[in-house]
Order: sequence, then structure tokens, then C-alpha cells
Amino acid sequence: MRKLLFIILFTGVLITPANAQNEKNMYSYKQIENRYIVSIDNHTEIVKALNAFCKEKGIQSGSISGIGAIGELTLRFFNPKTKAYDDKTFREQMEISNLTGNISSMDGLVYLHLHITVGRSDYSALAGHLLFATLNGAGEFMVEDYGKQVSRVYNSDLGLNIYDFEK
Amino acid sequence: MRKLLFIILFTGVLITPANAQNEKNMYSYKQIENRYIVSIDNHTEIVKALNAFCKEKGIQSGSISGIGAIGELTLRFFNPKTKAYDDKTFREQMEISNLTGNISSMDGLVYLHLHITVGRSDYSALAGHLLFATLNGAGEFMVEDYGKQVSRVYNSDLGLNIYDFEK
Amino acid sequence: MRKLLFIILFTGVLITPANAQNEKNMYSYKQIENRYIVSIDNHTEIVKALNAFCKEKGIQSGSISGIGAIGELTLRFFNPKTKAYDDKTFREQMEISNLTGNISSMDGLVYLHLHITVGRSDYSALAGHLLFATLNGAGEFMVEDYGKQVSRVYNSDLGLNIYDFEK
Repeated sequence: MRKLLFIILFTGVLITPANAQNEKNMYSYKQIENRYIVSIDNHTEIVKALNAFCKEKGIQSGSISGIGAIGELTLRFFNPKTKAYDDKTFREQMEISNLTGNISSMDGLVYLHLHITVGRSDYSALAGHLLFATLNGAGEFMVEDYGKQVSRVYNSDLGLNIYDFEK
Repeated sequence: MRKLLFIILFTGVLITPANAQNEKNMYSYKQIENRYIVSIDNHTEIVKALNAFCKEKGIQSGSISGIGAIGELTLRFFNPKTKAYDDKTFREQMEISNLTGNISSMDGLVYLHLHITVGRSDYSALAGHLLFATLNGAGEFMVEDYGKQVSRVYNSDLGLNIYDFEK
Repeated sequence: MRKLLFIILFTGVLITPANAQNEKNMYSYKQIENRYIVSIDNHTEIVKALNAFCKEKGIQSGSISGIGAIGELTLRFFNPKTKAYDDKTFREQMEISNLTGNISSMDGLVYLHLHITVGRSDYSALAGHLLFATLNGAGEFMVEDYGKQVSRVYNSDLGLNIYDFEK
């Protein structure tokens, strides 16, 4: 507790207000200890916004979950046999019933891995790896900062960037 | 730590048992620090139960996630162009594969924003903004209390109640 | 804080490295306080791996969420009227858009209750109670250890194992 207070006082975290919006008007947020409620601005691409948010706050590992509504969505389907991607864009109003993702870093940059489930106007669901999604309505995300650096490395067997844990 | 202990001892939190069920028999729960495992009673409408739970515990901000099974579900689809709602009720057995939501307050009352994904008997999924759902089986929810007041305001441009963060 | 340090020092937790892989090569992980980022190895059945992980770490209650990709999935649909199960196996590449679950114990053993939402190659979604799923790609799960024992009991009315909270 004292150590935490010490770190806060001597790293200038208190200079940043707990409620703030970044200069590019992509989001506003409220910080509660190591958690952030992030409200993304309408018509903003949410992967870009979440990347910018994690970069601004210096988050090197953590989790993201959230809900909202979007007007455009690009999902990526990865074929592990061919290591090829199949991307498809849906242009229609959709509810984000769940966004689940994790935050790590790769080559010194924020690395987000985000998956999404959405409901269409007929309430049927689409789901997959999130590439892009443009907000149309509200977008409310809970970001938890684990406070440690967690890195990824490219695995050529899988054709994927995976967590670099000791084996 | 000492401050927390002090707060607990002098606010009477210890008078309430950590395991309890409310008088209306909508749920039972177990508290672990700022988290609650909430088990909703069968045949209970879960939005009502989660609202009652948050009110009982005085939760002013936080997150909810969970799984379960339901026999009836009403989803709301919001059209941002017309600002009209399209609600549809499904009466059949469904598994809640995920409920994701957040807790805030508006005009002094608990405000829940909940989205849901469910699987039907043919395993296909429905998803969207949750209006009502009646439990039929188990309903297990993790509620995290952020311990701060977080408010919403009505945004007339969007036609939605959104987080009121400083800009 | 001091108490926690005391517990850590005198229970030998420090003997286990924070990054490790178990002997059966089902997963690797990184521990950050009471949280674990669990990366399941390719071609591993994830329910088995998550059970083994919780057993290894002695987790008696908590939550699990995650994303990934799988090549095989068995979902269970429970009919509350007949108390019969209807299991179906899908053999195709799928993205886990969300796995949500909780950890408890029953008869002294780890008890996982896991639900899953997946996206197929046409981006449509399947959802339900997870029985088995075999990883094909990456599988990244956040496990939170609540640090308390939480038990389940069989409820004959429901035909389900439910949380055993005081009423």
C-alpha cells in the first residue's frame, strides 16, 4: 500500500486527471485504481481507439471486455492449414453483445488481440476475430491494467503471434 | 489495508453475512472482497434480480458477467437513424453463453446496461441488448463492485444514456 | 500487504516460478498476483487443460474468460423438462469469440462450469454449454483466483449441480 502510494507520487501519475479525453476525441474514460471504464466516441473505429488508449496509458498487459453498437464490422477468419486470412466486412447496424480481448506488447508496441460477438437486426449472431469495427451508438469497455510487461513472439509453426511464456 | 479494516469495522458491513439471500427469494450470493458470485433463483427474471442485487448492496459502478439457462428472452434492437426500438421475445429453452454488462447510476438509481449471447436448441446463437430474460435452470453471475459512483446522462444526439465523463 | 507477504514466504509459493509449463505440455502461463494468463498448447482439449491448470494451482473458486481458435467442439444442450442432455460435436475450424466460466469445487475436486461462443468460417455463431473443444491455433485465457473455497451441491429438482450458498 505504501509502496503503491510511493510509486504513484513519484511517477507523476497524479498529474493526469482520472477523467479525461484524449486530444483526438476518440474516447473518454474514468480510472478506478487499475481499471478504466472507456467510453468510445461515436463513429470511431474501436480497435484504433483501444490501441490509442492503451498506448496513452502505457498498458503493457491486461484484459478488455465490453459492449456497444456498431455500423460496420470486419472479421478475420484464419485458416491454420493454409495460414491464409479470410476477411469479411459487414455494413449494417449491429449490437456488440460481447467483446473479449487481451493486451500485451510486441516489439515495444501495444498488441491487442480482440474477438467479438454481435447481434444483427434479426437478432442472429456473428462472431470471430475482430479486425475493425466502427461505433454507431455507445461503446463501453472495461480495461484492466495488469501492470506488468507481457510479450508476444511470432511462432512460424502456427503462423501466429503467441504469448512468450517460459517452457 | 488498515484503512480498509477501519472502514469495514465502522460502517457495519460485518453485520451483513457474506452469504445471504434477499427476502424476495430472487438470488443468493457469496461475497469475496469487492466481488460477488450471484446465483439467481430459478424462474426469476434476471434483469430485475440483478437490479435488486445491486440496489441491496449499494453498488454504484462495476461490471457483470455470467452464464446460465433461460426459458424466455426479450432483446432490444436500437435503430440509431430513427431512434426507435425493435423488441422481440423468444420463448424457448436457451443457454446464456455470455452476459456482459456494466453498472452505473442515473438520477440516483442503479442503472444496468446488459448485453447477452444465447445458444438455441440447435446451437445457433442469438445476441443483443438484454431487456428481459427468465431463468430456467442455473444462472451464475460475477458482479464486481468498483466502489465509486459513476453516472450516466441522456445524450439527445444519440438518443441514449451514456457515461458522463469529463471532456 | 504484510500478511500476504508472510503467507507467500511461508507457504513455499515462491518455489514455483511465475512462468512455467506443466509436465504434460498442455499449457504455459504467467501469474500476476491472483490472476493467470493461460496459453493452452495447440491440439489440446481445453476443458481438460483448464481443469488441470486449476488443480495444479489449487484454485477453489474464480472466473475464466478467453478467446482462441478450435478445430472441434462439443456442446451440451440441457432440457430442463426431461433433464436429458443433447450433445453435438462440430468438426471444423472455429474462432472462440468468448469463453466464460466459473471455478468452484465439488466433492473436493475442481468443478468448472464453462460456456462458449464461436464463429464459423461463414462468421455465423454457435453458442452453448462447453463439453469439449480441441485447440487449433492459439488459446488465451484469463483465470482469476478468488482465493476462497466455493462449493457446489446437486439439486435434484433442477437436475443440476448448483452453488451451495446459505438461504
